[in-house]
Amino acid sequence: MDKDNYWKNRATVRSYSKQDIPQSLLIEMLEEASHAPTTGNMQLYSVVITRDPEMKLRLAPAHFNQPTVTGAPVVLTFCADYNRFIKWCEVSNAVPGYDNFQSFMTAVLDTALFAQQFNTIAERHGLGCCYLGTTTYNALMIAEVLDLPTMVVPVTTITVGYPAQPSQGEGVGRLPVEAIFHNEKYVDYTPASVKELYREKEERADSRSFVKENNKESLAQVFTDIRYTREACEHFSKIYSDFIKKQGF
Amino acid sequence: MDKDNYWKNRATVRSYSKQDIPQSLLIEMLEEASHAPTTGNMQLYSVVITRDPEMKLRLAPAHFNQPTVTGAPVVLTFCADYNRFIKWCEVSNAVPGYDNFQSFMTAVLDTALFAQQFNTIAERHGLGCCYLGTTTYNALMIAEVLDLPTMVVPVTTITVGYPAQPSQGEGVGRLPVEAIFHNEKYVDYTPASVKELYREKEERADSRSFVKENNKESLAQVFTDIRYTREACEHFSKIYSDFIKKQGF
Repeated sequence: MDKDNYWKNRATVRSYSKQDIPQSLLIEMLEEASHAPTTGNMQLYSVVITRDPEMKLRLAPAHFNQPTVTGAPVVLTFCADYNRFIKWCEVSNAVPGYDNFQSFMTAVLDTALFAQQFNTIAERHGLGCCYLGTTTYNALMIAEVLDLPTMVVPVTTITVGYPAQPSQGEGVGRLPVEAIFHNEKYVDYTPASVKELYREKEERADSRSFVKENNKESLAQVFTDIRYTREACEHFSKIYSDFIKKQGF
Repeated sequence: MDKDNYWKNRATVRSYSKQDIPQSLLIEMLEEASHAPTTGNMQLYSVVITRDPEMKLRLAPAHFNQPTVTGAPVVLTFCADYNRFIKWCEVSNAVPGYDNFQSFMTAVLDTALFAQQFNTIAERHGLGCCYLGTTTYNALMIAEVLDLPTMVVPVTTITVGYPAQPSQGEGVGRLPVEAIFHNEKYVDYTPASVKELYREKEERADSRSFVKENNKESLAQVFTDIRYTREACEHFSKIYSDFIKKQGF
């Protein structure tokens, strides 16, 4: 059904043209995405649409001022949302018991599936998208800007707009598929197998420049020492855990 | 680009024909799905493919013996996986710091996006898919069956096969799109607004039979008292939290 090689050639788009996205198109795409799979048809998510430049400026620091936030016509914050469902329980004489980790995880999965369905639909409309992993770092800041009530937790953000440059259509390198699947049982990686699986990735030009620019010995060190350090992961683990509890889970 | 109304008409498929899925097609679809967005191009996931009927029988209790597990030609367990990445760090003279909650969440999101990309690709190939939310309930049992090492946690499962019946092409009802988006700021629901947003859902024939079959007063009570009770959510919260810690996060 899909002969256009979209799947392997898609790529994140971080800079956008000035062209706006009509609200009707945006809502139509969100409606299509809302038919993504969802646990027990509960739809445990909400999305907050940011178009106002002032609001983008307020969100930007939560995303470490990545220029894609203020540069995109639309910023979408996807939130795990039990608030709406619980309010429905309350008007229906039903007593909810969702202030716990399992319910949080259920809502996170619902939210991620909805976000990814939107991402695919938008990209197939010729739009460019960029996920912001910073959402789980500074969720408290985001919640304050967007007025999120209890039982609502930001999970991910997608910036979306028409691409500034036409797509190269070349996609982004990934590990060979053998790296990611296991038949029947998980076969653990050996030093030799893992070296072989990451060889192509390490040899790519962009990887080599990463290592050089950062004065590191290996690509993995760019991740552990610069991009995702123990200090940052532990710092934001505490902030996000505390925030999830504060929000009522 | 997509004129076929797939997005709104898709639906979960729980029963499958005897037709097998060729391994080459399965791997091709997983490879396409691996081009889904992933944090820092880290691909923090693995998928374990179950085809062996004996293995399906061993997985089934973890999924409360839902017949879709033993009835599907292929069961895919999608796992958050930092093990491979850490092993790569270790052979690259890099010191990883990913034994924390923030890293777990990052891997969960990567895994969910990969799973959803696979789900879409498979459905657009004419296959039927069913997500199993039970994966986060009995992750420990699943990990034992599949030999998952530390830093690997099951996040979701998709059963996949050719549909037993041709699709009705009618999709599944969802809340009106107004229920799930907010412009600029989250506008909280009132008792009146939430009643209105859930009205169509409550009035559907399948919802009415659910309420009747379960001898409940309202559809919400079917969720709170039967499908997702406080006792079950709290029980499985503890089991999943403990398991995540046991796995090293």
